[in-house]
Amino acid sequence: MSETRRPRILVTNDDGITARGIQSLAEAMTAFGDVYVVAPDSPQSGMSHAVTFSRILRLTPFEFGRGIKKAYACSGTPVDCVKLAVSEVFGHDNLPELLVSGINHGSNASINLIYSGTMAAAADGAISGIPSIGFSLLDEHADADFTASVRVACTLTRQVLDQGLPDGTCLNVNIPKVSSEDLKGIKVCRQAMGHWKDSFERRETPGGSPYYWMRGKFQNPDNGEDTDIHALESGHASVVPVQFDLTNHRAIDTLNGWNLGNEG
Amino acid sequence: MSETRRPRILVTNDDGITARGIQSLAEAMTAFGDVYVVAPDSPQSGMSHAVTFSRILRLTPFEFGRGIKKAYACSGTPVDCVKLAVSEVFGHDNLPELLVSGINHGSNASINLIYSGTMAAAADGAISGIPSIGFSLLDEHADADFTASVRVACTLTRQVLDQGLPDGTCLNVNIPKVSSEDLKGIKVCRQAMGHWKDSFERRETPGGSPYYWMRGKFQNPDNGEDTDIHALESGHASVVPVQFDLTNHRAIDTLNGWNLGNEG
Repeated sequence: MSETRRPRILVTNDDGITARGIQSLAEAMTAFGDVYVVAPDSPQSGMSHAVTFSRILRLTPFEFGRGIKKAYACSGTPVDCVKLAVSEVFGHDNLPELLVSGINHGSNASINLIYSGTMAAAADGAISGIPSIGFSLLDEHADADFTASVRVACTLTRQVLDQGLPDGTCLNVNIPKVSSEDLKGIKVCRQAMGHWKDSFERRETPGGSPYYWMRGKFQNPDNGEDTDIHALESGHASVVPVQFDLTNHRAIDTLNGWNLGNEG
Repeated sequence: MSETRRPRILVTNDDGITARGIQSLAEAMTAFGDVYVVAPDSPQSGMSHAVTFSRILRLTPFEFGRGIKKAYACSGTPVDCVKLAVSEVFGHDNLPELLVSGINHGSNASINLIYSGTMAAAADGAISGIPSIGFSLLDEHADADFTASVRVACTLTRQVLDQGLPDGTCLNVNIPKVSSEDLKGIKVCRQAMGHWKDSFERRETPGGSPYYWMRGKFQNPDNGEDTDIHALESGHASVVPVQFDLTNHRAIDTLNGWNLGNEG
């Protein structure tokens, strides 16, 4: 409880513990505190808030190197990683001071947020009471350049460690695919109301039975200048504060006008 | 395009196509329209919005019986089922008039919403432009009694087919474990801000290596009488209108006061 205790920072992701994005992020975090890594042992992109309760989970010590306090590879989803870290690595009464997730290889702006394992991990951190940030770079390549992303991650880490975050709120941070010099700045935004128009590529096995590969095209009818998509298109990193009351409060009155067969 | 065309209703779930909950729901829906079932070929509870884009998907005709137009078992997640149904069974320009998901064996009230495959399927329907409802019974048993749930499902199906739903909004409907006679009515609610305090049961393999089973205790500090948990505890079915702008709009001003290193 000494005032000079370094913050403890939990680092996770959804691309797996060997991805370059988490390596860059964990290394950058050593400037701010004692770094603990608990991340999936295999790629878990698109796993959203999936949790594993009907299969066993494993947590295996992992040699992460580079000044990391402790690291574990987990057999489960990103959310499993956070839940295991909170319960088994730290303890509910001894939460880390910060959780950072990423840096994801690919965008989690707009509706991607709800499919993202990176952001689900940050969300579960926030729901558990840990100030949490998810970082994503708009470049899916394994060898993407994380220089600008690390700069943004350091700026936001400093602010969140200083100022905290509102209860139950995490940050969804996306970084455009530009060099560190060309990054225009960091903009606070709302989530653009875009969606995926999915399509499937139908193929046949050598034996003639059909199967499908998911494809899709991102569509964004929301041209608001206050959106994350707009910020990214103009060369800024986007920061969206994200919360988990999904109630459409305005619709409650409408539904109360329905005939729901209640007698009294 | 004839006025008398029966509505087409897509039925899915997360417990798998052979679960009793989806059988009860699909059968009840035949009173309202032509019923199409596209549901997972194995249990997919807790899969949330997970999507499968790095593995192949299969869609296999399934003998559902009981007046069902067409049924397919899908090798993917609940959201995969909806995306395949929209793209391959109906077509984006020929959406069904209603999507119903469930009846889930177990609660999806409060924060369970974000982990639920049942509700993620309903959400993906709404995002694709289909009026969508998820139904969940607070009884996890395989042989649960779905009588009260079916009654609630019929009431809400009639209303949604008549009145539609606000754009991008689906309904999260939970039904208490009571007999049809003891059901007090249907209440429109907001999502209670509860959460899971997770724990893990540590075991060892016969060879001595550790593994974990996820456990957890639901905690609800939110005692609002307008919440889904309160409605369920008082013997009512709960209806929460759910939307997918996760922005914490009130936090935007706070974050705009931060020093984000922007020069201009």
